[in-house]
Amino acid sequence: MLAFQDYYPEHLAHCYGCGRLNEHGYRIRTFWAGEESETRFTPAAFHIAVPGFVYGGLLASLIDCHSTGTAAAALYRAQQRTMDSSPPLRFVTGSLQVTFLRPTPLGPELTLRGRVSEISGRKVTVETSVWAHDVTTVRATVVAVEMPEDFGL
Amino acid sequence: MLAFQDYYPEHLAHCYGCGRLNEHGYRIRTFWAGEESETRFTPAAFHIAVPGFVYGGLLASLIDCHSTGTAAAALYRAQQRTMDSSPPLRFVTGSLQVTFLRPTPLGPELTLRGRVSEISGRKVTVETSVWAHDVTTVRATVVAVEMPEDFGL
Repeated sequence: MLAFQDYYPEHLAHCYGCGRLNEHGYRIRTFWAGEESETRFTPAAFHIAVPGFVYGGLLASLIDCHSTGTAAAALYRAQQRTMDSSPPLRFVTGSLQVTFLRPTPLGPELTLRGRVSEISGRKVTVETSVWAHDVTTVRATVVAVEMPEDFGL
Repeated sequence: MLAFQDYYPEHLAHCYGCGRLNEHGYRIRTFWAGEESETRFTPAAFHIAVPGFVYGGLLASLIDCHSTGTAAAALYRAQQRTMDSSPPLRFVTGSLQVTFLRPTPLGPELTLRGRVSEISGRKVTVETSVWAHDVTTVRATVVAVEMPEDFGL
């Protein structure tokens, strides 16, 4: 099954967080799971804040790319278009608000879940949470802004 | 000259963003520059959002560690203590609010500057901005919370 990120045009597929062509990056992959979007990711042993707990900056990074991907997928849906149709829709992050509710344990695969709370013009607001097992450890709000078609060219 | 992070106790020096003992991490180093704190960092070629521009998740990570380090240094100052005195003060991130004002160019060394806006009990609020040459590209507010002395042990 193709992830949202598999539809990103080649020149926009080099992102350290979600670019399938960035061999050093996280290469996250996001899918619809009903009305929510979902990304699964297992941090590396060195992605820690203190031993045993995941680094908050990594979580912010995953949230960022998960949410901009969700914003794009949601706008295709709202326009009743498939993700392989033209012109491609890609988003950049306008703002990122992250609340760390409790330490995120290192070890389990983490799940990020996203829900679109607003689509307004070129802005899409996504509420994303991070789950370890059945516990929410982080909550975030991302305002994603549609990227001009020639951005990065 | 010792950086704020050089004073972190050994068991708290493994952070992916700022731990001097994390050989895979960013190992950022933060210093006072008058009333402001300052971190300099040059992203790697693969730390990109799109070619030519720095990845926002990396910037959020740098902001996070720069700000928790600043919070600790500020509390030592407020208590009129040197950073090598006991007990050690270390902070975790309660919340992180990042606004991306414009794309951050890849290439130049970046400067993060932090200013403490509030110290209230165990919470220290830090306003941090990212500069590329003489342009502010990102503004952030971090609420850092003092870590219990036995956290991570």
